Amino acid sequence: MILRGIAQVDFQSSPWTGLVFLVALFAGGWQFGVFGLLGTVAATVTARLFGVSWSERVAPGLEGFCGTLIGVGLVLYLDVRWMTVLLVIFGAAAGSVLTSALNVLLKPYDLPAFTAPFCVVTTAVVIGGSAFSRVGVVPASAAAASGTELSWTHLWQGTLNGVGQVFFQDQWYVGLIFLAGLVIAGWRLGVVALVSSLAGLATGWVLGAQAADLAAGLYGYNSVLTGLALFGTFVVATPVSALYALLGVVAAAGFSAGIGALFAVVAGHTLTWPFVLVTWVFLAAVPMLSRIRRA
Amino acid sequence: MILRGIAQVDFQSSPWTGLVFLVALFAGGWQFGVFGLLGTVAATVTARLFGVSWSERVAPGLEGFCGTLIGVGLVLYLDVRWMTVLLVIFGAAAGSVLTSALNVLLKPYDLPAFTAPFCVVTTAVVIGGSAFSRVGVVPASAAAASGTELSWTHLWQGTLNGVGQVFFQDQWYVGLIFLAGLVIAGWRLGVVALVSSLAGLATGWVLGAQAADLAAGLYGYNSVLTGLALFGTFVVATPVSALYALLGVVAAAGFSAGIGALFAVVAGHTLTWPFVLVTWVFLAAVPMLSRIRRA
Amino acid sequence: MILRGIAQVDFQSSPWTGLVFLVALFAGGWQFGVFGLLGTVAATVTARLFGVSWSERVAPGLEGFCGTLIGVGLVLYLDVRWMTVLLVIFGAAAGSVLTSALNVLLKPYDLPAFTAPFCVVTTAVVIGGSAFSRVGVVPASAAAASGTELSWTHLWQGTLNGVGQVFFQDQWYVGLIFLAGLVIAGWRLGVVALVSSLAGLATGWVLGAQAADLAAGLYGYNSVLTGLALFGTFVVATPVSALYALLGVVAAAGFSAGIGALFAVVAGHTLTWPFVLVTWVFLAAVPMLSRIRRA
Repeated sequence: MILRGIAQVDFQSSPWTGLVFLVALFAGGWQFGVFGLLGTVAATVTARLFGVSWSERVAPGLEGFCGTLIGVGLVLYLDVRWMTVLLVIFGAAAGSVLTSALNVLLKPYDLPAFTAPFCVVTTAVVIGGSAFSRVGVVPASAAAASGTELSWTHLWQGTLNGVGQVFFQDQWYVGLIFLAGLVIAGWRLGVVALVSSLAGLATGWVLGAQAADLAAGLYGYNSVLTGLALFGTFVVATPVSALYALLGVVAAAGFSAGIGALFAVVAGHTLTWPFVLVTWVFLAAVPMLSRIRRA
Repeated sequence: MILRGIAQVDFQSSPWTGLVFLVALFAGGWQFGVFGLLGTVAATVTARLFGVSWSERVAPGLEGFCGTLIGVGLVLYLDVRWMTVLLVIFGAAAGSVLTSALNVLLKPYDLPAFTAPFCVVTTAVVIGGSAFSRVGVVPASAAAASGTELSWTHLWQGTLNGVGQVFFQDQWYVGLIFLAGLVIAGWRLGVVALVSSLAGLATGWVLGAQAADLAAGLYGYNSVLTGLALFGTFVVATPVSALYALLGVVAAAGFSAGIGALFAVVAGHTLTWPFVLVTWVFLAAVPMLSRIRRA
Repeated sequence: MILRGIAQVDFQSSPWTGLVFLVALFAGGWQFGVFGLLGTVAATVTARLFGVSWSERVAPGLEGFCGTLIGVGLVLYLDVRWMTVLLVIFGAAAGSVLTSALNVLLKPYDLPAFTAPFCVVTTAVVIGGSAFSRVGVVPASAAAASGTELSWTHLWQGTLNGVGQVFFQDQWYVGLIFLAGLVIAGWRLGVVALVSSLAGLATGWVLGAQAADLAAGLYGYNSVLTGLALFGTFVVATPVSALYALLGVVAAAGFSAGIGALFAVVAGHTLTWPFVLVTWVFLAAVPMLSRIRRA
C-alpha cells in the first residue's frame, strides 16, 4: 500500500514500480527516501483515521502519493532538522484532508486531485516558513546565466532528468531508475515519458531558456506528468488525442516559466503546479470536444 | 437584525450577543463601532434592495456580518475621512452581491460563504487604494523583532486577544467582552474559542513566531473562527472530530504566516483568509470521511 | 465566422460589427489587425480540429474572440518578431482549449467564459516571457505623475478611449469607430457603452486617479464590457437592474486599480480581469436576488 502510494505519483498502482521509485529516491539521497516514506505513511494514516474508503482510495495508494512528494519536497527546501520532521507529518496530514476536499469539489467534473494538495501544502510551508525563526528554509540559489547553447550531453541528461525531477531529482542515473520503474508498469509508459520530457526540453530551448536549466530537467518534469495523464491514462490514445496531448505538454513546459516568475517574487517554487493546472484544463475541456474521449 | 448581523461574525444569531459585540467594538474605539454599524446597515440594505430572501437570509443577520467587518477593517487600514465612509458603503454593497454569488457557487457543496466577501473586498480596497491620491491607506508599520521569549503576560493576553482580533481588536479587555458575548450564546462556545485561541498561539510559538505577535493575538483569531466552525457549529462534536478540528485550528494558525508573507509583497493583510480557506477545505472533505459528520 | 469572432469581444454576432471592429484595429496600427486576425483564425481552427460544435459555438464566432484579443494583446506587450507569431498561434490554441474547459466548469452556474482564457494566456505569456531570451517583452513604461486635474479634452477623449481600450486602443478616433460598430448592432448598445465608460472614468476621478490614465480610457474599458454584459445582454434591463449594473460598472473600474497594483509586482497587466471577475460575481448572484432576472 505504501509502495503503491509512491508509484501513484506517476499514476501507477504496481507495488514493484513503487519499490523501484523508492530505490531511486534513496539513490538520490537517504533523506529523500526517509522523508518520502514518512510523508507517505503520515498521509495514509490520516486518511484511515478520519475514515476514507479503504478499498477505493487507501489500498490502491491514492491517499499516499501527495504525502510522498510533501516529504521529498520539504526536505529539499527546508534543511534536515526535527522541525522538518514535524512539518512533514503535519503537512502530509493537512494534505490528506485537502485531497478529500478536492475529490469532493472536482467530482462533478470527473477530475482527479492530482498533486494539487502537495503543491498547496509545500507552497504554503516554504513561503510561510521564512517568517519563522525555527523553520530552516534553504535560500534559493540564483541560477547562473550559463548561456543557451545546447550540447548533446545537455540533451540526453536533460531528457532523463525530466523523468527524475518529478521527484525533485537531478542526477541522470536517478532519472534512469525512475524510467525503469515506469517500464515495469508498461513499456509504452516509458516511451510517453521520454517523448514528453524531450518535448518539454525542446519547448524551453525554442523559447531561449538557459541550457543548465534544460539539462537539469526543469522544463521536462511537468511535461512528463502531463503527457502520461493526457495520453493513455485519462484520455484514450488516438492520433488526434496525440496532438491534443502534445499541445498540453508544450503548454505545461511554457507555463513553468510563468509560474516560476510569479513565485520568484515570494520565494516560492514551481513544483508541479503547471502539470496540475494544465492537465485539469485539458481534461475538463473534453466534454466539449467530440474528437477526444476520456479513458 | 443589525445586532444579529454583528453576532454572525462568530456564527451566532442572538441579538444579545450582537449587542455585547457592539459594546466591545466601541470599547476598542468609537470609529470601529460607527463604521462597523455603517457597514452592517449598507450590506443589509443592499441585500433587501435586490431582493435577497428576508426570512432565510436577512432576518437572521446573515447579510450583515461581512459588512460589519468591511466597516471595521477599512477604518483600520484607511484613515478616518469622507472617502473612507464612501468606500465602506460601496464596499459593503459590493460585498453583499459577492455574498449572494458565493452562496450560489458553493451551494452544490453545502459550504457557507463565511467571511470570504469581506476578505475579497478589503484586500482589493487596501491593495488598490494605494494607487489613488484621495484614498488614505495607512502604511503598515514594520514589526519590531522583539524576540521569541514568551512570558505569562504574553500568554494570557494573547489568548484573549485571539478572540478580539476576529474584529481587529488588540486590547485584552476588548477580547474579554467578545468572550462574554460568546458565553451568552452558550458557555461551550466560550471554551471552544479559548482553547482554539490557545492552540493557535501554541502553533506560532512552536514555529518560532515573534512574542509580540503572539501576544497581540495574531496567531489566534483564525484559529478561533476555525475551531468554532469545525467543532459543533458545522461539524458534529465527537472525539474524532475534536482531533479533526484541532488539525484545522493548527493549519489555520500556520497558514496565517504563508498568507501574510504572500500579502507582504503587495501591502495586503492576512484578514480571515486562513480561516476561510482552511474551513472550506475541512468542510468540503467531510463526504469522503466516514467518521466525520456535518451538523 | 472570423468577423463574428471579432464582434463577440463586445458580445455581438453581427459580421458587419466585426468588420467595423477590424477596420478600427487596422486604424490603430497594421500589426493589431494582422495579429488579431491571426489569433482569431488559430483559435477557431483549433476548436474545429478537436471537434467543438459547429452550430452552437464555432459559427456564431464564440470560438474566435479570445484568439482576437490574444493576438492584439501579445503584439502590444511583446515586440513584432517571428517568436511573437509563434506565441500568438500557440497561445490562441491553448486559449481555445481553456475556453472549452471553462464552458464545462461554468455550465452548472450558467456563466459564460467571457474573456478569461485571453486573460490567463496573455498574463502567463507576458509574465513568463521575461524569463526567456528569445521572447521580446516590451518593458512597461513608468506612468508619469501628470496630476489629477481633469480637463474637458481628458473627459471626452477618455470616454471614447474607454470603448477602444477593450481592444487596447488609445486613440479617440479608433474608439469612435468601435462605437460605430456597436451602434450598427443596436443604438442602445452604443448608449450603454458610452454611459458605462463615463461612469468608469468618473469612478477613477472620484478616487483621485491620474488624469492621463483617465484620458487614455484605462478606467473605462472594463466598465464598458461590464455595463454591456449586465444591462441587456445577460440581465433583463429594468430600473432596479440599472442600479445593479451601475454597481458592477463602478466595481469594475475601482477593482482595476487593485488588479493593477497586484500585477505591477510581477510586471503583468490588468487586461480585462476586472470585467471577467466582477461580471461572473454579478451574474452568479442572480438566483439569490428576486428583483434581478437573467436574460
